[in-house]
Amino acid sequence: MNNNLQIPADSVGLVKPQSIRFEEPLVLACGKVLAEYDLVYETYGTLNAKADNAVLVCHALSADHHAAGYHSESDKKPGWWDICIGPGKAVDTDRFFVVSSSNIGHCSGSTGPRSINPDTGKAYGPDFPMVTVPDWVKCQKRLAEKLGIIQWAAVAGGSLGAMQAMQWAIDFPESIRHALIIASAPKLSAQNIAFNAVARQAIMSDPDFHGGRYYDFDVVPASGLKIARMLGHITYLSDDSMGDKFGRELKGEQLNYDYRVEFEVESYLRYQGEAFVNHFDANTYLLMTKALDYFDPASQEGGNLSAAFKKTSAKYFLASFTTDWRFSPERSREIVKALTRAKKDVSYLEFESNHGHDAFLAPISSYLDAFAAYMRHIKVSGE
Amino acid sequence: MNNNLQIPADSVGLVKPQSIRFEEPLVLACGKVLAEYDLVYETYGTLNAKADNAVLVCHALSADHHAAGYHSESDKKPGWWDICIGPGKAVDTDRFFVVSSSNIGHCSGSTGPRSINPDTGKAYGPDFPMVTVPDWVKCQKRLAEKLGIIQWAAVAGGSLGAMQAMQWAIDFPESIRHALIIASAPKLSAQNIAFNAVARQAIMSDPDFHGGRYYDFDVVPASGLKIARMLGHITYLSDDSMGDKFGRELKGEQLNYDYRVEFEVESYLRYQGEAFVNHFDANTYLLMTKALDYFDPASQEGGNLSAAFKKTSAKYFLASFTTDWRFSPERSREIVKALTRAKKDVSYLEFESNHGHDAFLAPISSYLDAFAAYMRHIKVSGE
Repeated sequence: MNNNLQIPADSVGLVKPQSIRFEEPLVLACGKVLAEYDLVYETYGTLNAKADNAVLVCHALSADHHAAGYHSESDKKPGWWDICIGPGKAVDTDRFFVVSSSNIGHCSGSTGPRSINPDTGKAYGPDFPMVTVPDWVKCQKRLAEKLGIIQWAAVAGGSLGAMQAMQWAIDFPESIRHALIIASAPKLSAQNIAFNAVARQAIMSDPDFHGGRYYDFDVVPASGLKIARMLGHITYLSDDSMGDKFGRELKGEQLNYDYRVEFEVESYLRYQGEAFVNHFDANTYLLMTKALDYFDPASQEGGNLSAAFKKTSAKYFLASFTTDWRFSPERSREIVKALTRAKKDVSYLEFESNHGHDAFLAPISSYLDAFAAYMRHIKVSGE
Repeated sequence: MNNNLQIPADSVGLVKPQSIRFEEPLVLACGKVLAEYDLVYETYGTLNAKADNAVLVCHALSADHHAAGYHSESDKKPGWWDICIGPGKAVDTDRFFVVSSSNIGHCSGSTGPRSINPDTGKAYGPDFPMVTVPDWVKCQKRLAEKLGIIQWAAVAGGSLGAMQAMQWAIDFPESIRHALIIASAPKLSAQNIAFNAVARQAIMSDPDFHGGRYYDFDVVPASGLKIARMLGHITYLSDDSMGDKFGRELKGEQLNYDYRVEFEVESYLRYQGEAFVNHFDANTYLLMTKALDYFDPASQEGGNLSAAFKKTSAKYFLASFTTDWRFSPERSREIVKALTRAKKDVSYLEFESNHGHDAFLAPISSYLDAFAAYMRHIKVSGE
């Protein structure tokens, strides 16, 4: 299979999503209850006899369970974290059994706003309950139990995914040996919340939104979602990387002096926005931004993040990137400080990169090498 | 008048906008021609006998000709740069005659999209031609001539206003002695353009926009303009100032777990967006963002900014603010470098401030003191 021309030798190869239905009701942070739900997930590598080589990979705002490998030989792109997951890669599938699930509320198979609400026989839409990082961790815990995993060798993620790794360490201290927290923050800043608020405003004020019930009208709030994604995209890239990539290059030969696309960067953003609308659900976008806004593990300890980490027993690896202005290195250092104050075992690295927040998805060799070095020190039985 | 309880002693007091009609056709950078147009302006102080004490103040994206003083005794706020303009202030109206005009394309009296197009007898709307910084400078030059001003003692502005000061120095080297360029940039970055592109997308995709002909439908693209303004506002403030002002403070007692306003910062942004919609025109917003995108004085010298400054004869004062991430200090330093390479006389100061880009409008004493000190050294006859 790996000999296929399109699938590189260090890929996990062709992969297939699986699905599990959970029928035990799930009480969410918001107080509502999901009577039943599905989780879609993928696994890469093999669980060892003692089930101590399992790594949970958590996705961020717009990704899903498809973290590595290809769904078909004609796939143009592998999973979202393929640079890190595979034989010989940082999360080495020759050693580790990797699990990657889509979170509830998402639009890629796990139960979400597009799923049928058993109470009404129609899509949930805006009635899908608000979900939070702790809710997702609870779901992942149940999935782990179904897969026979009592303790993760590691839980890893970038951005919103890293927030899940943090939450795992706090909520289930005995069930995680290492937390890998990449390009993250202990909570959103006012500016982060503000960007999310604008994105939501764009979606909710699109007349095709219909209060979230657009499925009933056979439309999607495309222009609102497009604006939200364009805006998000600006915050994922650095000023430098946009400058390097596009500068002030014109799309055509000269200035139009009209409102058609004029600069390359406009063209790029519109393309990104339009491509996104074709595969992503607006209600999910709303839910994800709210989950980000709500994340604040220190809040249960009166704002003391160090206290929140006190009872954790994981070891920590943190990484940040110099030009990430969404979750800047300073935000990672806040987590590092809280962990060291709580006397935890922490490794922290700051990488030079002009990729902005998206650096955690980029093939930056210093970052991948450090990630791999950390993972090599994680002991698994039978080695 | 200055004894009025509401009008402070160091105010220029009650002021009245004036208007001049220009009937000589204006050829714009885009190639189109405005056959006639009005400019609305205010003046503060007295023009001296030699007319060598005139200072032109140029406004940025959302401001207008009302730079100082009050329009009525019940006005809650003075003009947009009242902190700098008045008796004894940086631009001391006991010494200087200050002129502040609204730019064409704007929505505050000077000819713009809401004005009647003489060709059709209806509002220009989207047929109002694209306007640029050099076009505005050309208009201001004509206004200067009408007012009997051959040479400005100084042209001053912040942000887009500062771009006009730069353009003055380049286009009319003999007509300006000092250029005060505050919180500006030599051209927009790809990221700056990207934010503008998202703002325009929000306005133009509002169904009430009607291709810019919304006046005909007796509606305004309120939700699009509101989104554009909310987004703009994020870029005017610093992450720090938003953090200091709002942090993660909740609007209510606890989390709602719904899409109503939840955090203080959301409430603030929505309020700002809604207030803006009540007084600003969406077509003008589009034009202003394009004027920003187009500004690039180096482009006529093959990208060499220093060459663009070569023939200028003004002296320069530049100022930037540490937390301004829209036009960061680095962008001001690019201008300073180009000016020094062109062997021009430049003063540059970087001020500590947590106000972000809006710092140029803020009462920061170190900034106002330096501004005043520079202005004190400008010679005017009869002193």
